[in-house]
Amino acid sequence: MVQHTIGLAPLTREAFKPFGDVIETDGARKFSINNGAIERFHDLARIDIGDDPDCVPLLSIAQCNQATSLPFRIRLVERHPLASQAFYPLFDKPMIVAVAPDCEEVAPDTLTGFYTNGKQGINFHRNVWHIPLIALEQGQQFVIVDRGGSGNNCEEFHFDSADELILQRIE
Amino acid sequence: MVQHTIGLAPLTREAFKPFGDVIETDGARKFSINNGAIERFHDLARIDIGDDPDCVPLLSIAQCNQATSLPFRIRLVERHPLASQAFYPLFDKPMIVAVAPDCEEVAPDTLTGFYTNGKQGINFHRNVWHIPLIALEQGQQFVIVDRGGSGNNCEEFHFDSADELILQRIE
Repeated sequence: MVQHTIGLAPLTREAFKPFGDVIETDGARKFSINNGAIERFHDLARIDIGDDPDCVPLLSIAQCNQATSLPFRIRLVERHPLASQAFYPLFDKPMIVAVAPDCEEVAPDTLTGFYTNGKQGINFHRNVWHIPLIALEQGQQFVIVDRGGSGNNCEEFHFDSADELILQRIE
Repeated sequence: MVQHTIGLAPLTREAFKPFGDVIETDGARKFSINNGAIERFHDLARIDIGDDPDCVPLLSIAQCNQATSLPFRIRLVERHPLASQAFYPLFDKPMIVAVAPDCEEVAPDTLTGFYTNGKQGINFHRNVWHIPLIALEQGQQFVIVDRGGSGNNCEEFHFDSADELILQRIE
C-alpha cells in the first residue's frame, strides 16, 4: 500500500485557472440593474455545453444525503468530455474539491485539493478530472448547471487499490 | 388615476405553468448519485437560449443593494424574446414576482403576483412579461441562468402613469 496525501488549499481564481472557473462575486465584473436596486455579477463561469444540436443546458439541484468527513479516501475521479459542470453552494456552506488535469491515466500525485469559503462555486471545464461531489454537512445543497443530451459525458478513473489517496487538511 | 391591485398568491407549479417553471426540489424528479451520498433533483427548468450559434448560457449572481417593501408600485414590466431567464434564491429567502402572458400591450389587470417559500426559484419562459427582479431584503442573492450573445433580448413595457398598479399581499 502506498499512501498519497492530498492537502487542501484555499480556492482562488488563480490557482484554479487550469481546471475551471471559481464562481464568486468578489472581484467579479458587475453592473447595476433595475434602477440601482440590484447588482449583477455577470457571466461568472464559461458554461460550455458543446454545439451538438440535441444538447441543452440543465439546471438541477444536488442535496447531500450523507455527509463526508475528512480525512477522505479518494477511490476514483470522473470527468465530462462533452461539457463543463458548475456547482454553486446554497446557504453559504464551504465545499471541498480535488482535481487533476486532462490526461489518460491519473497519477495520484497530480491531484490538487481545494476548500472554498462558502461563497464560492466551481465550474469544472471539459475533461478536468475531479472527485465526485461531496459535502461536509447533511442537507447541504448546490445549484448545478451542466449538459443534457445524448453521448457519453461521464468517464471514471479508478485508482489502483494499492494506492491509498487521502484528502485532508494540512495544518 | 385608476388603481389596480395585484394580489400575491403562493407559487405553485400548476399556477405558474403558463409563465415558466418553478425550480424546486419538492415533487421533482430525482435520483441518487455518488454511491447514494448525493440526491440529484434533475433538470428543474427548461433553459432555452435559442439556437443562434453565437449565444451561450450565462451563469451570474444578482445581489440586492436596495430592498423593496410592499405594497410596491409596478411601473414597468420586461420580457426576453430570445431566451428564458432563471433565478434561484440563496440563503432560503422568499421572493416576489408578477407576470403577464405574451402580448403586445400589457393590460394592468392581466398581471398575476406570486410569493415563494424561500426554497423555490423561477424560470421565466421567452416573452413572458415580468417585473424586474426585486428582493425584500438587502444582501439577498440569486443565481441567474440566462443568455449571452448579440441581439435585443430585453423589451420593456411602461404602464400609463394614470394606471397605478399596486402589488401587495392580500390577507
